[in-house]
Amino acid sequence: MRPMTILTETDLRRLVKLDLEAVACVENAFRALATEQVAMPPILRLDIPEHRGEVDVKTAYVPGIDAFAIKISPGFFDNPALGLPSTNGLMVLLSAKTGVTEALLIDNGYLTDIRTAAAGAVAAKHLARPDAAKAAIFGAGMQAKLQLEALKLVRPISEARIWARDAKKAEAAAGELRERLGIDVRAEPDAAEAAAGADVIVTTTPATEPLIHAGFVSAGQHITAMGSDAEHKNEIAPAVIRMADLYVADSVRQTRRLGELHHAIDAAVMAADAEVTELGQIIAGRKHGRRTAADITLADLTGTGVQDTAIATLARDRARAANAGTIFES
Amino acid sequence: MRPMTILTETDLRRLVKLDLEAVACVENAFRALATEQVAMPPILRLDIPEHRGEVDVKTAYVPGIDAFAIKISPGFFDNPALGLPSTNGLMVLLSAKTGVTEALLIDNGYLTDIRTAAAGAVAAKHLARPDAAKAAIFGAGMQAKLQLEALKLVRPISEARIWARDAKKAEAAAGELRERLGIDVRAEPDAAEAAAGADVIVTTTPATEPLIHAGFVSAGQHITAMGSDAEHKNEIAPAVIRMADLYVADSVRQTRRLGELHHAIDAAVMAADAEVTELGQIIAGRKHGRRTAADITLADLTGTGVQDTAIATLARDRARAANAGTIFES
Repeated sequence: MRPMTILTETDLRRLVKLDLEAVACVENAFRALATEQVAMPPILRLDIPEHRGEVDVKTAYVPGIDAFAIKISPGFFDNPALGLPSTNGLMVLLSAKTGVTEALLIDNGYLTDIRTAAAGAVAAKHLARPDAAKAAIFGAGMQAKLQLEALKLVRPISEARIWARDAKKAEAAAGELRERLGIDVRAEPDAAEAAAGADVIVTTTPATEPLIHAGFVSAGQHITAMGSDAEHKNEIAPAVIRMADLYVADSVRQTRRLGELHHAIDAAVMAADAEVTELGQIIAGRKHGRRTAADITLADLTGTGVQDTAIATLARDRARAANAGTIFES
Repeated sequence: MRPMTILTETDLRRLVKLDLEAVACVENAFRALATEQVAMPPILRLDIPEHRGEVDVKTAYVPGIDAFAIKISPGFFDNPALGLPSTNGLMVLLSAKTGVTEALLIDNGYLTDIRTAAAGAVAAKHLARPDAAKAAIFGAGMQAKLQLEALKLVRPISEARIWARDAKKAEAAAGELRERLGIDVRAEPDAAEAAAGADVIVTTTPATEPLIHAGFVSAGQHITAMGSDAEHKNEIAPAVIRMADLYVADSVRQTRRLGELHHAIDAAVMAADAEVTELGQIIAGRKHGRRTAADITLADLTGTGVQDTAIATLARDRARAANAGTIFES
């Protein structure tokens, strides 16, 4: 009999929250990506065009973490018409020593939301000015809200503006965040105005044309772009990458293919083989981050399997400590 | 709340057996592979050399089957020293329409054993002489035993010889099969003797050097090679492929890379781009199988994701009908 712990979304929402421990866990994963022999194979992707469906399977082994996650992320875009969410998903956590399944995390994407938001906090921690107080968030979805919450964990954010294509959604998100975070949050219908004067800009949209243009950006700002996880997505104009003092990738192998970098390469703003700083190298002290208060810095986050392995292992550890979940013998 | 059915190995052993329905289910999967727009992405493979571990993730979508399996197959070769089996694994079954997880099949490799054995039956059904009565099985493991059982489902097998590198294991397997199947089964320590006069030869070993040489093979025989699921594995001498009247692949994309075909290509016995018959094309009546009682036929089976999707869906259907398994709400 081999025991396996099953954790539902309800369990996981109770066990893992967006807090400094989640941020540290993702930070450690990025450090490992830069310093250890991480194994992160290319994503397995299955397309089912007749149902507008796609499934990504990601995994990564991180030396020093005793388990690894295999994450199954389906997206079926006709689901809303059936009364179902477009995306859901789960993670299977296997022992890195024996391959035995330790846990099944039926998170419906919740852990991905948290590890993605935590990556935003890690980027800001290492790249935004220490006194960063004003944030501009592009997008008004779940991840937009989490990104502002994440920034507050690492910087003294006291004011935020929300821009979204749908102004009503921006208003609603601003109202919700004002209530929840107790800071001055308002919707701003003009994108250039939203960015103007912000210390940190975070983009969280599925845009396929740049939202952030060179004219929006000024000295001292940090930008985190996290909407881009596919070839056709693009939030940041290549000219912004040219004017940035520092461009940082979560995984350069991915950003050359999926991230803002790949559009900058297409636009001949960056060389395809240009040496690029990765976030983990800054965390590990192997490369510099922000050097002056006037630097413009840009983090290009596409989402990595090491983040999944890190957050899934944190969830398992907390479930053990709390005796949570259902033990299933098979 | 989304219900998910969890089936353990015990459930699955009760629900799915090696029988004609399992054979038909795998036969249909091969037919679909030849006739439908099957989506079968390349295998995701993660290696953890420090623990002699590897994990394969396979999937396939088959039009006409309303769900698809994602199979996670770990192999950790230091496990026996820890008192654990080297391989285990599970399948996650998702709706092909919505991506919602329908079932978790914690089979520890059992369903793979069954779908692999069923593929042997399908190959023999379409390629062995209808009167095939004598079998030679190479290997004495679980799959060797299942292959003989599978042959008996589709051909009037009355006699079998078992050859294995370890003669004691061959004796033990022969004894067990004699008892279980009620036919004349004996161990044969000489490989050429084992093959001589057999109507069907099945190889199920992890050999890295050919076991079956041209001198072992005679007119009218059918050979199924199923041990080879990795580049370095090789059971059949390239000269056997040259002398065969018909070479058949489960998936030519796979056998060119992993199967006996790839060694034949390396030995310049087959052209790398030679047109090759696939098993599904014979099932669908699009290509011929055996033409005369004297033909030598060879099936090269590397294992395909469509078989997993087919057997996992069969298991789900039977669980529903039997009201079996544990319903888990999340």
